[in-house]
Amino acid sequence: MTVKILRLGHRAARDKRISTHCALVARALGAKGLIYTGQRDSDMEASVRRVSEQWGGKFTIEHATSWRKVVKDFKGKSAHLTMYGLPIKDKIGEIKKTKDLIIVIGGEKVPMEVYHAVDWNIGVTNQPHSELGALSIFLHEYFQGKELNLDFGKSERRIIPQKAGKRFA
Amino acid sequence: MTVKILRLGHRAARDKRISTHCALVARALGAKGLIYTGQRDSDMEASVRRVSEQWGGKFTIEHATSWRKVVKDFKGKSAHLTMYGLPIKDKIGEIKKTKDLIIVIGGEKVPMEVYHAVDWNIGVTNQPHSELGALSIFLHEYFQGKELNLDFGKSERRIIPQKAGKRFA
Repeated sequence: MTVKILRLGHRAARDKRISTHCALVARALGAKGLIYTGQRDSDMEASVRRVSEQWGGKFTIEHATSWRKVVKDFKGKSAHLTMYGLPIKDKIGEIKKTKDLIIVIGGEKVPMEVYHAVDWNIGVTNQPHSELGALSIFLHEYFQGKELNLDFGKSERRIIPQKAGKRFA
Repeated sequence: MTVKILRLGHRAARDKRISTHCALVARALGAKGLIYTGQRDSDMEASVRRVSEQWGGKFTIEHATSWRKVVKDFKGKSAHLTMYGLPIKDKIGEIKKTKDLIIVIGGEKVPMEVYHAVDWNIGVTNQPHSELGALSIFLHEYFQGKELNLDFGKSERRIIPQKAGKRFA
């Protein structure tokens, strides 16, 4: 079972934090890696890798030049999250049957070609909000809440949940 | 039933997009408004209000100088989303009984006082990710998926969900 994220059209100056958050959400909620197109951003890659090294797991981050090639070469199906897509509630049952999935998220302007290259265009609501909101709820629905209890293995940092305050293991 | 978001320590330059996304996610997923502390940012306020005017609903955005006063004056309970908190799955049942809720999200450095001022500190996983990821899943759990079908009333813009492509009503 492999779930990966494809983040389109990263702009190093404008999107650094949002794209970093996309990668961290993807990692925390059970995806195996994030591939991004647009500007190569070694700062962002380094900060995502640092989190992964400190907190465990094997999340990968890679740059790609062609989203077409990524979608085409991925052995599995593809879902594009867009406010124009079909309601997640109507389609998630069908999507869950796919064990290997690449989840495509924009970028400011997503080329129309993307809509036709993927297996599903899915709306997490049809209101404008955030690729981060859409991705989080999509992963939560796809993994059925099990992603909230993932084991990241041995790691340098680990939190012991507290009623108030902060505690590390 | 009133759910509001309190976003702590906004920095106009660094946080503009993340805070804007927080407000849009909050609106799209059924919260009534966002209050933020830190730097006043009329650009951000204007862009959130513009979305609300075009897409319907009555979402509000306000600046406050003191988070303490906001939490204290709010007639209801408060939940702070933090990676150090108790698992959402263990607490959401209890939290759902609260009809009026203010959801507190950081900010880079959340003062320890916040942890003690709120009714719950909740971890949407205990991994580092994004206040946007935490907020989205929290709202989704709190509203039990009903937030995905909200009616925003008469609005200038409205999407008709499509299998591929874009269509407005």
